[in-house]
Amino acid sequence: MQEHQQRIDELIECGKLFHQRGWSVGTSSNYSVVLSQEPVDLIVTASGFDKGRLTREQFVHVGPDGQPRYPNQPKSSAETMLHVVLAKRPEPVGAILHTHSIWGTLLSQHYFADGGFEIEGFEMLKGLEGITTHETSVWIPVFDNTQNIPELAEKVEKLTKSEPNKIRFAFLIRQHGLYTWGRDVFAARRHVEILEFLFECRGRRLGM
Amino acid sequence: MQEHQQRIDELIECGKLFHQRGWSVGTSSNYSVVLSQEPVDLIVTASGFDKGRLTREQFVHVGPDGQPRYPNQPKSSAETMLHVVLAKRPEPVGAILHTHSIWGTLLSQHYFADGGFEIEGFEMLKGLEGITTHETSVWIPVFDNTQNIPELAEKVEKLTKSEPNKIRFAFLIRQHGLYTWGRDVFAARRHVEILEFLFECRGRRLGM
Amino acid sequence: MQEHQQRIDELIECGKLFHQRGWSVGTSSNYSVVLSQEPVDLIVTASGFDKGRLTREQFVHVGPDGQPRYPNQPKSSAETMLHVVLAKRPEPVGAILHTHSIWGTLLSQHYFADGGFEIEGFEMLKGLEGITTHETSVWIPVFDNTQNIPELAEKVEKLTKSEPNKIRFAFLIRQHGLYTWGRDVFAARRHVEILEFLFECRGRRLGM
Amino acid sequence: MQEHQQRIDELIECGKLFHQRGWSVGTSSNYSVVLSQEPVDLIVTASGFDKGRLTREQFVHVGPDGQPRYPNQPKSSAETMLHVVLAKRPEPVGAILHTHSIWGTLLSQHYFADGGFEIEGFEMLKGLEGITTHETSVWIPVFDNTQNIPELAEKVEKLTKSEPNKIRFAFLIRQHGLYTWGRDVFAARRHVEILEFLFECRGRRLGM
Repeated sequence: MQEHQQRIDELIECGKLFHQRGWSVGTSSNYSVVLSQEPVDLIVTASGFDKGRLTREQFVHVGPDGQPRYPNQPKSSAETMLHVVLAKRPEPVGAILHTHSIWGTLLSQHYFADGGFEIEGFEMLKGLEGITTHETSVWIPVFDNTQNIPELAEKVEKLTKSEPNKIRFAFLIRQHGLYTWGRDVFAARRHVEILEFLFECRGRRLGM
Repeated sequence: MQEHQQRIDELIECGKLFHQRGWSVGTSSNYSVVLSQEPVDLIVTASGFDKGRLTREQFVHVGPDGQPRYPNQPKSSAETMLHVVLAKRPEPVGAILHTHSIWGTLLSQHYFADGGFEIEGFEMLKGLEGITTHETSVWIPVFDNTQNIPELAEKVEKLTKSEPNKIRFAFLIRQHGLYTWGRDVFAARRHVEILEFLFECRGRRLGM
Repeated sequence: MQEHQQRIDELIECGKLFHQRGWSVGTSSNYSVVLSQEPVDLIVTASGFDKGRLTREQFVHVGPDGQPRYPNQPKSSAETMLHVVLAKRPEPVGAILHTHSIWGTLLSQHYFADGGFEIEGFEMLKGLEGITTHETSVWIPVFDNTQNIPELAEKVEKLTKSEPNKIRFAFLIRQHGLYTWGRDVFAARRHVEILEFLFECRGRRLGM
Repeated sequence: MQEHQQRIDELIECGKLFHQRGWSVGTSSNYSVVLSQEPVDLIVTASGFDKGRLTREQFVHVGPDGQPRYPNQPKSSAETMLHVVLAKRPEPVGAILHTHSIWGTLLSQHYFADGGFEIEGFEMLKGLEGITTHETSVWIPVFDNTQNIPELAEKVEKLTKSEPNKIRFAFLIRQHGLYTWGRDVFAARRHVEILEFLFECRGRRLGM
């Protein structure tokens, strides 16, 4: 994985930032860089490590089936199949970040019954790839939580195909966390920061 | 721009602090130092960079028309014309800071219909240039957000001329962010810190 | 204590993190590593030091009676007997962490009359040792505060024996703080981070 | 002031911590070390500097009249006379810290009409000098804000003499900030941390 160490180092930096922000505490979260979208080839955090102080050895290189490509690698995250499904999205995807924040968790509980929620009218939305005006609206779907990751991955894939407008930048999983992505680690990290900002604005207005 | 590197470095420091505070996340915000107020000559952050880790190359030197003075410079921020208008204010202006905070955003939504809000009676107000007692009141106007920056710049200029008492230290843009300024980077940064403190006090009392 | 310095250093690191998070301010909190569970042999923070900048000299080596094993050691924490009782738990216990957070304190006040509270349905619960699904529920008991530590230690021991399901990972003391533990410092620290996350989620939903 | 540089350095450290916590933003706050209580001899922060990055030159050595002892010193803080009055308290006072926090400000507004408020039943109170049980209660008086510092200093002195139980560890000034003190910088800093913790607990329970 030596040729990919720069991108792995970028994920390590994300982990430090997100842990410090309180978005990746207690070994939660997982991050990946996508080397190829077709066929899927990606490097994802291994299971069970502190995201605030990741090392280069705490990543796994997996193929389209979510299984490690090489022997003697650490165990990949249980949620690897979600990364695989997101890597297959139609637009360029170079990195996928999954985090667990307080505000995201609270909104996922609050809006689960509605299937998600709309964010609109914020200048900050322009930080999401391709958005050029605040006069827009972004839907954040909320999926139910499950330990059956292939089943959840299938639901995500299905919504991506049937209603792409409802899953453009991110989704939440109920009482669990956020998935977002971008053309590279920089873009995906920007999406995390922007969405967390917007979630906190919404949560505080709800009086949480 | 070598003779101005110390001031650029001060803006880089501001970016680190503001990103860490959560006031400049996800490539939002822009900052400038004013080299001359008449005619306007300023150096402003280029578009699209992470404000928490700016480099000396991520700035643009612009003239009174907001256009880059030299070839081969990065693209200047879309909001450069607001910096140009603020640089022309009557008092000494050496730096202009634009940030995006949670509390500023919430107040901009809450008070937009009123055109702004009054802050009064706080000792902390004495940190705003020229204020020497807490027995005073400062109006923070809230402008509507728009992608038409020249139009917004004109509104700001107009209010500055017609009702200078309503736009002495800062303004908010609805669901967007804060503009403030000062005689140098130190003073402008102090204004950001003080206003954010006062915004959070107000927001928490409103029960947000 | 030289052979145990690595584990002491891990506690020093915990102290830095927890102080920065606001969970161990003003010389509050105490931490220990358990060298032997039967008979109890442990190293615990000495009394009265700033937990954000502990040094290797600010720890005491104590035996099953909670008394220093060697002469000329600093005074051990008043709450050492709670560490001794927790070290005797049936599962592997390698570290015990006691912290004082805002959210834990607020919940301890709110739920004292109920004897504790249930946390359920969060993915984050999977960070607690041995939990493999979010479809579970964890009871956090709240004990009354007292300066009679042996009496409190006895209550903790009694509940551990009579209703082990009610005191699996942690407990709160009213208007005082959190005790949690783990097979090593890493696990105990993970438990602190996860429980604090869940406490803040609960507290914010209660509208505190 | 060379023989006092260690204590000045401790105040510089306080400033870094308090600025980072948001308790001393925008050049607000002032700190002193007391070299002698009778007659009063102290070193206090000079006026107008950023407390997050104080230097050894940004302090003034003053006598019992609050005036600089030596020529060519920077201007002392406007509130120096409050430091002088607190230095004369009956118990050992080695440091005085004045900070401006969000929660302290909110409580000072909320409780001004009552003249102050009681904090009781928290274990954290034991971090205040001489308190050995949570079964106690501490009164935090709230004085009205004024630019007439000698007048305020007189009120503080008067309450200290007439009702010493009402001003044992600290006081708030309305919409302004906190004053607390201790036998040395370490103790005074601990008092700040503990009081801020208790203020936030109270503020959040009030639903601010």
